[in-house]
Amino acid sequence: SKRYTITLLPGDGIGPEIISVAKNVLNLTASLEGIDLRFQEMPMGGAALDLTGVPLPEETLLAAKQSDAVLLGAIGGYKWDANEKHLKPETGLLQLREGLKVFANLRPATVLPQLVDASTLKKEVAEGVDIMVVRELTGGIYFGKPRGFSKSENGEEIGFNTEVYAGYEVDRIAHVAFETARKRQGRLCSVDKANVLEASMFWRKRVVAISSEYPDVELSHMYVDNAAMQLVRYPKQFDTIVTNNIFGDILSDEASMITGSIGMLPSASLGESGPGVFEPIHGSAPDIAGQDKANPLATVLSAAMLLRYGLGEENAAKRIEAAVLATLDRGFRTGDIYSSGTKLVGCKEMGEEVLKSV
Amino acid sequence: SKRYTITLLPGDGIGPEIISVAKNVLNLTASLEGIDLRFQEMPMGGAALDLTGVPLPEETLLAAKQSDAVLLGAIGGYKWDANEKHLKPETGLLQLREGLKVFANLRPATVLPQLVDASTLKKEVAEGVDIMVVRELTGGIYFGKPRGFSKSENGEEIGFNTEVYAGYEVDRIAHVAFETARKRQGRLCSVDKANVLEASMFWRKRVVAISSEYPDVELSHMYVDNAAMQLVRYPKQFDTIVTNNIFGDILSDEASMITGSIGMLPSASLGESGPGVFEPIHGSAPDIAGQDKANPLATVLSAAMLLRYGLGEENAAKRIEAAVLATLDRGFRTGDIYSSGTKLVGCKEMGEEVLKSV
Ligand SMILES: CC(C)[C@H](C(=O)O)[C@@H](O)C(=O)O
Ligand SMILES: CC(C)[C@H](C(=O)O)[C@@H](O)C(=O)O
Repeated sequence: SKRYTITLLPGDGIGPEIISVAKNVLNLTASLEGIDLRFQEMPMGGAALDLTGVPLPEETLLAAKQSDAVLLGAIGGYKWDANEKHLKPETGLLQLREGLKVFANLRPATVLPQLVDASTLKKEVAEGVDIMVVRELTGGIYFGKPRGFSKSENGEEIGFNTEVYAGYEVDRIAHVAFETARKRQGRLCSVDKANVLEASMFWRKRVVAISSEYPDVELSHMYVDNAAMQLVRYPKQFDTIVTNNIFGDILSDEASMITGSIGMLPSASLGESGPGVFEPIHGSAPDIAGQDKANPLATVLSAAMLLRYGLGEENAAKRIEAAVLATLDRGFRTGDIYSSGTKLVGCKEMGEEVLKSV
Repeated sequence: SKRYTITLLPGDGIGPEIISVAKNVLNLTASLEGIDLRFQEMPMGGAALDLTGVPLPEETLLAAKQSDAVLLGAIGGYKWDANEKHLKPETGLLQLREGLKVFANLRPATVLPQLVDASTLKKEVAEGVDIMVVRELTGGIYFGKPRGFSKSENGEEIGFNTEVYAGYEVDRIAHVAFETARKRQGRLCSVDKANVLEASMFWRKRVVAISSEYPDVELSHMYVDNAAMQLVRYPKQFDTIVTNNIFGDILSDEASMITGSIGMLPSASLGESGPGVFEPIHGSAPDIAGQDKANPLATVLSAAMLLRYGLGEENAAKRIEAAVLATLDRGFRTGDIYSSGTKLVGCKEMGEEVLKSV
């Protein structure tokens, strides 16, 4: 049978609880599908800071590199919020992305029929929303140099960053986005601020050039301010969105909130080759950590993405996704997606119910 | 009686129609309040490009500088979209902001009880929303240098911009924001990306330092991705938001769409001294230009902001705002805010109805 090693990075806050559920679901699914999964758990984020003094220990990155895929819980918490930059949990996450060269972040924002009422948007606006945001993840202002603190010519203190894209960076994310759109409804909207920023004009020019290789995909362009509006006004207009690192950070969070089911949404971060990183899009929720209240389904669905995009195990991925839907159909809900008439359960119990449906 | 000169910049698309309505409302209001208003109309945006070859002619900037306030319609259109940067209508707008040093952009996002159904958000989420976004308007990545196109060390083409803030730039917008919050509910949320960007860490440090001068204002901080979510999840949590130029561009558009009444929302751009720029937040809507379909109320309410913030004529400002509400109460609606049971009117007729209520 096929053998894979999965690196588990539980991280902080609710991270350990949700990773524990996803691991059980992966284990059962693997045995039913005849796949041999081995797990190695490594410290990262605040947990790693407390243990080793850095947010991404070398051993963790090395283990991740040598494995077939990485499943991440969540990182960060109030405790480390005031830390200097190189000692922030977030810095560990950026180092992991850079170290594994996972430049393509796929973030689906889908409204499940079972959960349409959870959206703050009117039912007729929210239902049927099915957006895939393809966010560039290892370039742009997140990593651009020069950056830092300095003094201006007239002696004023300044803080600065560089938004920069090289041609190959735009080209490779554009290819992922066109391929993704092609497998969906065939419509790709590239979001930029090309009416003001040179980095965006450059982005647009390269995306347009790549588009000639995908005549079957309909390409459109939208300014980021308008995109932020249109997601609220009429989200169903979008199929696949491609955008830079910082705009993708903002718009994918907005899109996921529009679904109302942020505790349900997985993500995949992929490179040219090598292991991908799979993680829920929600954060570490320190306020409910350790209370068995977290919704583990985004992590379980991230495990499904891991099987599909990370290991090419489509059947196993589908089995997990079907189990999650069946569990929702049987009425089980964690607090964040609870509505009257459904059955309120904690993180562990939700995990057990999913296992029953796998 | 007091005399003021107002520069009118109708601009492109629906600009001339909505400015014409607002001018009539200003004229009547002024005569009732004993104010002497003179108007000078100047070309700008695409209209100026066609006429003079540049998007902001020197004469226009000079006239604006020498006047007491500027009322702008809207700029831009498909016709000029592919122009090079220095020949874009948008570049004229940036030059106007820079030339008049209007660093503080106030953008209210208010849900009027009369129009709560126009929001795509559920009634209980939308009603009562009353947010003021204070956006920094003459700094950050919009104006930062170096910027442009170049080659990287390994010969790759690149496009780049610089996000940069100097201490005095953050301090002065922070003062405007704290003063604004103080006159409202006393809560200020500063939005940044201080977990990743040095420019944001610097921003946060300066805002915190200024906050000691405003012990009566409650200051909080939020990451921009979370803010984009929270505006959808629970917009009523916000009172006043302060943020940088690009985040403000995105979040203020999102916030205004949450109200559902984008055709209703005015804005004010103010400097330390000198004339402010007042304009609706919506765009030039080239698809409905010249068809008498535009909603002139955002421009009329911008004229009210002009009277209040630009000329200190509070009574005249209130008179216009009351007239707009009365016109809505009498049931008149343009297409964008129409709902069954109300009276559909065009741009001109809406203007005439407002005049009746002034
Ligand atoms: C934690 C933070 C550094 C991160 C980002 O900004 O990329 C997060 O918001 C995300 O979207 O994964
Ligand atoms: C037209 C454009 C340059 C402008 C901006 O980005 O500032 C607009 O979106 C705005 O918000 O006033």
